[in-house]
Amino acid sequence: MSELVERLRHERLTLTRTISMVENGGAGAANVLREITPATGHARVLGITGPPGAGKSTLVNQLIHFYRGQGKQVAIVAVDPSSSISGGAVLGDRIRMQEFYGDSGVFIRSMASRGQVGGLSAATNDAVRVLDAAGFDVVIIETVGAGQDEVSIARAAQTTILVEVPGLGDDVQSIKAGILEIADVLVVNKGDVPGADKLITYLKTMLTYSHYDWKPPIVKTVAVEGKGIDELAAQIDKHFAYLEQSGKLTDRTRAALHDELIERVKLELAARIAAQLNTAAGAAMLDELVSRELDVATAARRLVEGLC
Amino acid sequence: MSELVERLRHERLTLTRTISMVENGGAGAANVLREITPATGHARVLGITGPPGAGKSTLVNQLIHFYRGQGKQVAIVAVDPSSSISGGAVLGDRIRMQEFYGDSGVFIRSMASRGQVGGLSAATNDAVRVLDAAGFDVVIIETVGAGQDEVSIARAAQTTILVEVPGLGDDVQSIKAGILEIADVLVVNKGDVPGADKLITYLKTMLTYSHYDWKPPIVKTVAVEGKGIDELAAQIDKHFAYLEQSGKLTDRTRAALHDELIERVKLELAARIAAQLNTAAGAAMLDELVSRELDVATAARRLVEGLC
Repeated sequence: MSELVERLRHERLTLTRTISMVENGGAGAANVLREITPATGHARVLGITGPPGAGKSTLVNQLIHFYRGQGKQVAIVAVDPSSSISGGAVLGDRIRMQEFYGDSGVFIRSMASRGQVGGLSAATNDAVRVLDAAGFDVVIIETVGAGQDEVSIARAAQTTILVEVPGLGDDVQSIKAGILEIADVLVVNKGDVPGADKLITYLKTMLTYSHYDWKPPIVKTVAVEGKGIDELAAQIDKHFAYLEQSGKLTDRTRAALHDELIERVKLELAARIAAQLNTAAGAAMLDELVSRELDVATAARRLVEGLC
Repeated sequence: MSELVERLRHERLTLTRTISMVENGGAGAANVLREITPATGHARVLGITGPPGAGKSTLVNQLIHFYRGQGKQVAIVAVDPSSSISGGAVLGDRIRMQEFYGDSGVFIRSMASRGQVGGLSAATNDAVRVLDAAGFDVVIIETVGAGQDEVSIARAAQTTILVEVPGLGDDVQSIKAGILEIADVLVVNKGDVPGADKLITYLKTMLTYSHYDWKPPIVKTVAVEGKGIDELAAQIDKHFAYLEQSGKLTDRTRAALHDELIERVKLELAARIAAQLNTAAGAAMLDELVSRELDVATAARRLVEGLC
């Protein structure tokens, strides 16, 4: 075991700083990833997503208590990709941090948007790797929204849990197309309010259109009262067992790494292209585009040729 | 004027096929863009966005009637980026096409997701260019959702209109962070229902945090009754006048082209990287990643070096 991994497991400050380092990218991040990668692969990685107001944070807190009760170490990565311009709102993790203050078996980190599509996803993946190497048994990635960024963040999870609640407007429209397809386990939270059963029926109907050979179970919870959490944890385990037995765990990891690699290379190259546009020649090219002497397809081709 | 541009202006079939061609990308698209770019720059390009159920389609229909009443030719590009996996739901444009059937001054096209982040945005930009070259006076890009893809689609518009309605859940959460910052004109549709004035007050408060020197006006509409459309059109004109007088129109065009170029180069390179991963050497690299002998940062660096 490398010295860094050893320290990650015993020093909270090293853990916090190492996550910041991978978030910042560049050579520092690359060195960390090279050193920690052999020590990863132990953590169970869960993704939790769903619309604002669905009670995700409460549900995650209940899962933390559940896994802590089993003696497991739990880390949370709370991600808000919805604010691409203003810099991202921080989820309710201050309150949460207070709830688990003093418990060294719980670690909570929030990730703000990295400004660029793919940047947040790469940073989240790397933070999960650091937490995995640091010995956390369960890493929960909590995200808001249902955009492209979220779909790629979900890919880092072995099991993705979609939380819905009754009463968030018209069901057909509030459950965004595409998001159901990334869900391995569905949760209908606030399961005791009117409309919960109707929502379950609706979700069941939607799931009949799924081509996926794993049939996502629907778990009813009342997160504020801790109801349904045991059942949720059982379904998460069942999904993981399915992944292992079917051989899909490796397929999934491989597909996620494939997509992540493309994203990372794109990010790296985007930085180089931006630098190229930031030269006198780049400014001249933009002038020609603005005046319509040059078209974007030709300009893009020239940039690619200049890069490679 | 090139022969293609001449035909785009008189043959509807050529227009439809040319848009499909730019959607498909590649050399065909590049040729079209080279030929039409000098003929672009005439159209006023509007973006309309907002949550599902806000009444965007109805509002757009009213704007079509308004601009047709002024003798202008109007084209609509309806974009749904929310479904990145399943292929994109088509907006209610069949019904709409019937409404304007037989009016050659109206053209409606819907764009499905291109599967890749940035792909839809590039295809939308190019479709707008074709419609601009074809002589449409007004091109309206209508999008759903508030993801990254939508923000980049909004960049193609000179004036972006954000439509909100009262009663779509908690206002604070339903109006996604970031989306307000791309809005040049705000519309509170269904302005006659309870809660409309509260929503306007809320939006005004939110706008006080804006650093933008253009203060987005808030227009109350009842789109189903055609109320507020004249006022909306007047505010759109006012915003365009502001852009021209302040010199921001060129800045905006330049910034949009800058970002679009980077997106296009990334798309082009992503295709090359995917091809590289699809070789025996690529498969071997993925195997090493899955088994954790190799880390993603090193793998990404090797791919960049292999490309350039």
